[in-house]
Amino acid sequence: MLLPLQLFLDKCHKTFSEDHSGALADYIPELANANPSHFGISLATIDGHVYDIGDSSAPFTIQSVSKAFVFATALELIGGERVEDRIGVEPSGEAFNSIRLNSQNRPFNPMVNAGAIACSGLIYEKYGAESFELIRAMLGKFAGRELVIDQKVFESENRTGDRNRAIAWLLRNYKGLPEEVEKALEVYFQQCSLIVTSRDLAVMGATLANGGVNPITNEQVIGQNNVARTLAVMTSSGMYDYAGEWAYRVGMPAKSGVGGGIVAALPGQLGVGVFSPLLDSHGNSVRGLKVCETLSAQFDLHMLNVSADVRTSVFASYDLKNITSRRSRSPDEQKIIEQNHKDVKVLELVGSLAFSTVDYISRQIADFETPPQILILDFRRVPNITLAAARLLVDCLVNLRKHAKTLITLTGLEEPSKIWETMRSVQEEFPQIWRFPSVEVGIEWAEDQIIYRYGGFSISPQLVALDRFRLTAGLGVEARNELSKLVTEKLYSSGEQIIKADEQADALYFLQSGMVSVKLPTGVRLATLSPGKEFGEMALLDNKRSADIWADTKVQCLELTLSSYNYLKDRHPEIGERINQNLAAILA
Amino acid sequence: MLLPLQLFLDKCHKTFSEDHSGALADYIPELANANPSHFGISLATIDGHVYDIGDSSAPFTIQSVSKAFVFATALELIGGERVEDRIGVEPSGEAFNSIRLNSQNRPFNPMVNAGAIACSGLIYEKYGAESFELIRAMLGKFAGRELVIDQKVFESENRTGDRNRAIAWLLRNYKGLPEEVEKALEVYFQQCSLIVTSRDLAVMGATLANGGVNPITNEQVIGQNNVARTLAVMTSSGMYDYAGEWAYRVGMPAKSGVGGGIVAALPGQLGVGVFSPLLDSHGNSVRGLKVCETLSAQFDLHMLNVSADVRTSVFASYDLKNITSRRSRSPDEQKIIEQNHKDVKVLELVGSLAFSTVDYISRQIADFETPPQILILDFRRVPNITLAAARLLVDCLVNLRKHAKTLITLTGLEEPSKIWETMRSVQEEFPQIWRFPSVEVGIEWAEDQIIYRYGGFSISPQLVALDRFRLTAGLGVEARNELSKLVTEKLYSSGEQIIKADEQADALYFLQSGMVSVKLPTGVRLATLSPGKEFGEMALLDNKRSADIWADTKVQCLELTLSSYNYLKDRHPEIGERINQNLAAILA
Repeated sequence: MLLPLQLFLDKCHKTFSEDHSGALADYIPELANANPSHFGISLATIDGHVYDIGDSSAPFTIQSVSKAFVFATALELIGGERVEDRIGVEPSGEAFNSIRLNSQNRPFNPMVNAGAIACSGLIYEKYGAESFELIRAMLGKFAGRELVIDQKVFESENRTGDRNRAIAWLLRNYKGLPEEVEKALEVYFQQCSLIVTSRDLAVMGATLANGGVNPITNEQVIGQNNVARTLAVMTSSGMYDYAGEWAYRVGMPAKSGVGGGIVAALPGQLGVGVFSPLLDSHGNSVRGLKVCETLSAQFDLHMLNVSADVRTSVFASYDLKNITSRRSRSPDEQKIIEQNHKDVKVLELVGSLAFSTVDYISRQIADFETPPQILILDFRRVPNITLAAARLLVDCLVNLRKHAKTLITLTGLEEPSKIWETMRSVQEEFPQIWRFPSVEVGIEWAEDQIIYRYGGFSISPQLVALDRFRLTAGLGVEARNELSKLVTEKLYSSGEQIIKADEQADALYFLQSGMVSVKLPTGVRLATLSPGKEFGEMALLDNKRSADIWADTKVQCLELTLSSYNYLKDRHPEIGERINQNLAAILA
Repeated sequence: MLLPLQLFLDKCHKTFSEDHSGALADYIPELANANPSHFGISLATIDGHVYDIGDSSAPFTIQSVSKAFVFATALELIGGERVEDRIGVEPSGEAFNSIRLNSQNRPFNPMVNAGAIACSGLIYEKYGAESFELIRAMLGKFAGRELVIDQKVFESENRTGDRNRAIAWLLRNYKGLPEEVEKALEVYFQQCSLIVTSRDLAVMGATLANGGVNPITNEQVIGQNNVARTLAVMTSSGMYDYAGEWAYRVGMPAKSGVGGGIVAALPGQLGVGVFSPLLDSHGNSVRGLKVCETLSAQFDLHMLNVSADVRTSVFASYDLKNITSRRSRSPDEQKIIEQNHKDVKVLELVGSLAFSTVDYISRQIADFETPPQILILDFRRVPNITLAAARLLVDCLVNLRKHAKTLITLTGLEEPSKIWETMRSVQEEFPQIWRFPSVEVGIEWAEDQIIYRYGGFSISPQLVALDRFRLTAGLGVEARNELSKLVTEKLYSSGEQIIKADEQADALYFLQSGMVSVKLPTGVRLATLSPGKEFGEMALLDNKRSADIWADTKVQCLELTLSSYNYLKDRHPEIGERINQNLAAILA
């Protein structure tokens, strides 16, 4: 199948290939030698797929696109405070190569030449001669491959960069660069001369879009906070003096370079890299702008064009009314559950949990008529939770536990669970929380709690008589007397296995006291049975056991072997028919 | 329960109440008369809940906060093209009251006084004397209540607004205002004098955050595209010459006014309104800034701090291997399904579908070893789809249908379904699509298609003999002969009802050819039965019918009345026992 996004990019490439407007950069001869027909488009997704079309592997120098990634590198290696002290974050309203500084004699922002040189200077101050190798390594991590320098371009830029040299010395005048002005400048010229492709730019953008994690190598290149800072500066100042227009029309944080490259990053979605060396009067690639504009318009990729409905985060909300767990309950127990069905509230959640969805969920919980005794939050359909959302959710649960003594139960979390780890990490005062693999098991447990709370130990203290079982219903007095002579009393201790799957099925059992679980050999529990229930009754139909039976407590039961049953049936055919009919009714 | 977000806002309010730095605006006497201790915080969610603390109902004049909403109004009433022709969207790098225009002699953007006056002028040009009432009505729709003007503030601003008058005449000089300069200015002064509260601002912000729909009145105030445009300009220029810093630190599109108000809007999440009249040197409310900064830092509300994992959008992906529908199949049919299990692919989707998740889904589909004959996309857990995502998805399905002839099946869509409407709306060339209420029914249908395709009409051409039914298994020759004398042949035409729920259950049936459906009276189908299956057999246990039975095709079956059965059983008790045992086995 042809991927729809690939088709769209192919169409873009074809359409805009015909646009030959704009001019090659000519401030150094090497850039003026570029092939004006080169045109590559790449789009990288946050799960690591890269779409390519055209000259997506044609090399070119990164130039000013490096500014965004070297700023991110400086934030990561040197820290926000020192970087922000040296470089502003306001748009300048001027061209990229302006020598004007702000009222504190600092560069307006790290996306203009002055700010980028100051940024390289900061790295040089700390790392000296290793600085460029460090930058090369970091930008390589963003791209997911080793990047190399175009020595000829570097030498040319270094030789002819008079204006940048002027900016550097002016910065030095205000102590905005270290003493080694030439060395710092050299780092700047080197970083601008790194060779990339449109594919590299797409992956670099996707790394920013993916919270700083390269989606192909899965390496965390920079921290999430530094990603937001970098993207913020790209938003306000990344496209030279076209930045406002870009934010208005395209709405993806982006950075362009005079080499003809543009990188764009849409957080949580994708990175785009375009290469076409014909530039407009602002210094931006003509075709690059068009590709990004068209992509944004066609697929509503403006970062501020977000629609959401927090209400969809609750998939289902219910209490125990008309809900029954797989555990069989005695009529007394069933009655307790029915009378107190409002004590247990279940919220099944769905989708990624962010701040606003958790706020909505917290209000759903607060809106219950009375706070529940037990709250079950089911996470089966929740793929992840943000740190902030976890913070709010834990706050909510702490309050609920503290003020209403609610038992907090989380179900459907995987083992190990990133969601659980995130929740554990946000707060010292962490409430006691019960966890169960599935909402069904959670409900079962909640029912037990309710029965225990209201019924205490008084439930089923006596042994259930043989004529109270469904399998024996409707037998005449004589038949019952016959039957009671044929059964044997059996005792099991808690944890003992009573029946083993795949073994010969040669008896059935009447549970008189205690609890047993029906489990698959894998350990999955199918049901839990309480007194008054039969087990192993499938022996009447099948000569192999289909499941394990375990004693959950001390268990007392009556065993009826198949040979005794057959003896009884042969003497009283109507007993056989009645019991089979009862069995059919139980199974129905 | 105390809501965690309310507790957090309470703490913010308490902490920042102690900060008395900043000064009242004094450019007109009315503003200097404000109560400096006033401090209100409101937060409105996109589902219409409003958190309030402090002086959240204290009135103040909206001042420059109006600029954002009047710009939105102008986009909506006059259209983007004319507005953008008259007013730029680049940050100016200058103070809000700068008289400087850009190189085209236009205001830099609509958030500085020059741009806002030009905006009011545009509205005046079209609507004349009605302009202010129109603006008042629109801002009232944003706030969800009628707003009124503070006449004293208006008159004072009108009397003393010398600088704004200078700006207006300069605009007029470049034909950026209509001839009636004073009238346009009056509209501007009036809009600035509208009285709001922090609660109003929160709701106005939430309306922007909610795609232009007021979350309390549910009215669509402006279109989604104009929302993104407004938020883009607020992002680049909303906080005067602090905008870059704000985008860097807080990352919520915002607008402040010298009345002490700040509105912030985080798309898809919430709106914030703060009122505290003590201003910093940029003209922004000191406490307002602090509240927004703290809120953003605590809950990671930076608009560019987004994490996502598109891979979680596919909840489950499988084919027919080891999956069986509720429809009973003959062994021949079962074999066909098993041999061709890869022909049907099911993707169960989860969460809101956006561009990048649908791109991921399209790649999952393209990655199947071979294109499936039938693709089932289940939407049960999908609350919504964006227009762009719908566009991409329909592209994908059109391609799949065209190139691989795949039958496209959507399940779990509600009726009526907004998702379905969105998909229908995006494209003229819409593929033929089958829809079923649930994935189970979809799978059943897909199985039918596979059986039909590979088995053709050759399946079950003959009548199934009475001894081939499970209910009659193990009966001796004599018993079978007896039985065959007691049954009656019955014929039904397609669509005829055979059994009605709640009626007397007085017979059971052996289906010899054709198909029947077991349905609830509500129309929900429980199962579909093929030849060789019994129906109505619960008559042996229960004297009322529990479900309807309908003939899906021409049907031929054998009827055994209960009275015939009882007659048989009385003469041959072992037949009764055997049949009951068989019934139990069927039910198991």
